[in-house]
Amino acid sequence: MIITDLLIIGAGPTGLFAVFEAGLLKIKCHIIDALPQPGGQLAELYPKKPIFDIPGYPTINAGELVDNLMEQIKQFQPGFTLAETAVTLTKVDDDWFEVVTNKGTVHRARAVAIAGGLGTFEPRKPDHLENLAQYEEKGVEYFVKDPEQFRDKKVVIAGGGDSALDWSIFLANVASEVTLIHRRNEFRGALDSVEKVQELKNQGKINLITPAEVVALKGEGHIQAITVDQEGVQQDIATDFFIPLFGLTPKLGEIGNWGLEIEKNAIKVNNALDYQTNIEGVYAIGDINTYPGKLKLILCGFHEATLMCQSVYSRINPGKKYVLKYTTVSGVDGFDGSRKEAEKAVVKKID
Amino acid sequence: MIITDLLIIGAGPTGLFAVFEAGLLKIKCHIIDALPQPGGQLAELYPKKPIFDIPGYPTINAGELVDNLMEQIKQFQPGFTLAETAVTLTKVDDDWFEVVTNKGTVHRARAVAIAGGLGTFEPRKPDHLENLAQYEEKGVEYFVKDPEQFRDKKVVIAGGGDSALDWSIFLANVASEVTLIHRRNEFRGALDSVEKVQELKNQGKINLITPAEVVALKGEGHIQAITVDQEGVQQDIATDFFIPLFGLTPKLGEIGNWGLEIEKNAIKVNNALDYQTNIEGVYAIGDINTYPGKLKLILCGFHEATLMCQSVYSRINPGKKYVLKYTTVSGVDGFDGSRKEAEKAVVKKID
Repeated sequence: MIITDLLIIGAGPTGLFAVFEAGLLKIKCHIIDALPQPGGQLAELYPKKPIFDIPGYPTINAGELVDNLMEQIKQFQPGFTLAETAVTLTKVDDDWFEVVTNKGTVHRARAVAIAGGLGTFEPRKPDHLENLAQYEEKGVEYFVKDPEQFRDKKVVIAGGGDSALDWSIFLANVASEVTLIHRRNEFRGALDSVEKVQELKNQGKINLITPAEVVALKGEGHIQAITVDQEGVQQDIATDFFIPLFGLTPKLGEIGNWGLEIEKNAIKVNNALDYQTNIEGVYAIGDINTYPGKLKLILCGFHEATLMCQSVYSRINPGKKYVLKYTTVSGVDGFDGSRKEAEKAVVKKID
Repeated sequence: MIITDLLIIGAGPTGLFAVFEAGLLKIKCHIIDALPQPGGQLAELYPKKPIFDIPGYPTINAGELVDNLMEQIKQFQPGFTLAETAVTLTKVDDDWFEVVTNKGTVHRARAVAIAGGLGTFEPRKPDHLENLAQYEEKGVEYFVKDPEQFRDKKVVIAGGGDSALDWSIFLANVASEVTLIHRRNEFRGALDSVEKVQELKNQGKINLITPAEVVALKGEGHIQAITVDQEGVQQDIATDFFIPLFGLTPKLGEIGNWGLEIEKNAIKVNNALDYQTNIEGVYAIGDINTYPGKLKLILCGFHEATLMCQSVYSRINPGKKYVLKYTTVSGVDGFDGSRKEAEKAVVKKID
């Protein structure tokens, strides 16, 4: 069982920054996310794209912002439960909440912050493959969680967007064989990714089949081959893995069943104070919440995370008054024993 | 007369970022600040000190944050009235406000955002010099607005902190003669500043008199000399300028007389919506406002500025609905004709 002070559901920018503000208040955090890496949409959907409205950054790539936030919170040693989805939220007693994931991991915390963005990103599955479910975790993968899993294996990737292009490029140097299948000849993605795939195809490092579609999966237990249909001609291709990358759809999912007040697919909060939901001790911050005037912007999530942490502090330390300290003046003391601080002024004689 | 859409009072980080968010909504901004440069406290009080709680910056120097914000808003060409203090706020008719400064500069705008931080930074004046006021703007300066003003002139600086040290160092290469006077032998400031002054003193580039105090100012019309008392011994030193740098005190000042609801030296706002004050069309954002749960943090000012701009948009464009656009998707179009945008995806055949 994982025990922490503040359990954060969602490792997007808002959830990550909450760890920092909590840390300043000596509150320990643990984060659950359905994706295999931290960063939410920024890491999964557009890591190489620039964002222009992060205050103080005339431009910053989404992936770089995630890296910087991870660096900023490092001192506070957050725990992570990644590639798992929070399924149930239960109040254990007056002071504790329990959250269990789809893999059965149990978390207990004094407060819960839902920073779930647009919801859990679920893969769009190719719905015409009738025995797809039977091969899930037996060769069918919707995310590349750990590229090493594919070392020296045969891999078939399906899709025509950035994910399909980028993972084909990456796995060309890891897997023993990469086949990329797309129903059109044209791919949609960053110019350099498209050009790189063309180059790897010319070098024989990517086996490209277009316009084509995977129409059947075969294998005893684990997947062993797929059948591809190219303009009416079918062939079987032996493979160890089939990775359909057809995009992700955000779903509020199980969070919708937790007894929270929901409005237009978002969680209602009392924005005037601390972004608390109708369940005391459960907060919603970032894109997943709603209140009058709400804007779904990363910078608003940062603010909401900050106010929320003050409220969590009062909840965990009843009666104790927190006096706001400025990091420039007081420095930052990490849970790892590290300290960041401004250079101290000296008092020194000049003679 | 300066005419704009949104007049911002205060060029600290919150006021600066408001220009960016306003710009995204095609709202033109003009900023008034009592200090001679943008950046507020960050530029005036601690430009070289690190801040650790700006989201996405594990550490950033205050001066660098100001530079980055200036770069970020450049596309939206804000106007500046610097080194002037807003004295009166009047409603001209239902749609316009007029703000006049202490120098008589008249501004008209459709909405006013007070981003005044802790208030106007007023210099602490040496109160024992009876004819001080008579030499103000005639050789007595409390800020170094334009260093060129002192080129090849004689300058006497008084003070023992960072400002006195830093301006002595800077002006040593500009003025014909720099005299630094402090009532103790010890200076309090960054180690490298103290050491640099020591070095310049040894080289004869700074004339150091400690422990000592300026006790009289002399001159017909313009200042011509000061009298310094060093442990009971007095001497006159010829000078063109006397710059006492004894720190700044923030004062709410004239803003307190504008009919705004004030609570504990801050302006009350309706935080649930748009940080509007009791005067419709006048907003207060950043450290100068107060509402339940208020935290005086830069990142909160960024959020408040953003929500405020949406309200200003509705005020200026009644009945028009604004649909939030993401900068990553839509790019940023500057008022200067420039455009920032993410690299477009291509649709390209691979064969």
